[in-house]
Amino acid sequence: MKNDSCIFCKIAKKEVPSKIIFENSDLVAFEDISPQAPVHVVIISKAHIEKLSDVTEKDIRLMGSMVLAAKDIAADKGISGSGYRVVMNCNKDGGQAVFHIHLHLLGGRKLNWPPG
Amino acid sequence: MKNDSCIFCKIAKKEVPSKIIFENSDLVAFEDISPQAPVHVVIISKAHIEKLSDVTEKDIRLMGSMVLAAKDIAADKGISGSGYRVVMNCNKDGGQAVFHIHLHLLGGRKLNWPPG
Repeated sequence: MKNDSCIFCKIAKKEVPSKIIFENSDLVAFEDISPQAPVHVVIISKAHIEKLSDVTEKDIRLMGSMVLAAKDIAADKGISGSGYRVVMNCNKDGGQAVFHIHLHLLGGRKLNWPPG
Repeated sequence: MKNDSCIFCKIAKKEVPSKIIFENSDLVAFEDISPQAPVHVVIISKAHIEKLSDVTEKDIRLMGSMVLAAKDIAADKGISGSGYRVVMNCNKDGGQAVFHIHLHLLGGRKLNWPPG
């Protein structure tokens, strides 16, 4: 399912340029345009799901594959050993900026606590 | 698989007290003992996996089920609409404090950016 006005759908369809670093049948990963750490990658589903609170049991594998993609990209970026953080924001208090489900991968520096 | 010296394994086995709010065959969720937000829940796998960088393809459903548990707990806590953030830390730069894989759910206040 696509949403014609969604910027992440446009990135997934290559209608908007982005620095894509990984893609498979379900996911696209690209460099965040406003990086908060030396490594900051955004992993999106190709399917237009607005937010985590909309996810259902049928999406379990999709959610797991987003987490595993983050882990694999961290390895590719050489930060598995030093460490990293994965973050998903839902709705306003979570700081969700684009309403198309996505997972942030951040690393290459010490991430502080609390996480925002 | 259990690790006898792991505090989260002990929590999962009820050998150490905690405020458990959810449990199924694979997961346990409990209130964080050092909460960073009005809602701060930790979701762990019952299996002792040290960290995200150790996860493999066979764990895709487990990772997805942790994310879905966070979403369901957020709904139970009444913060689905206001919003929340889910966070997983890996290794030192990620701020991982306990080496047993876990997902943080935070909400009930505005989470800031960057996420740490």
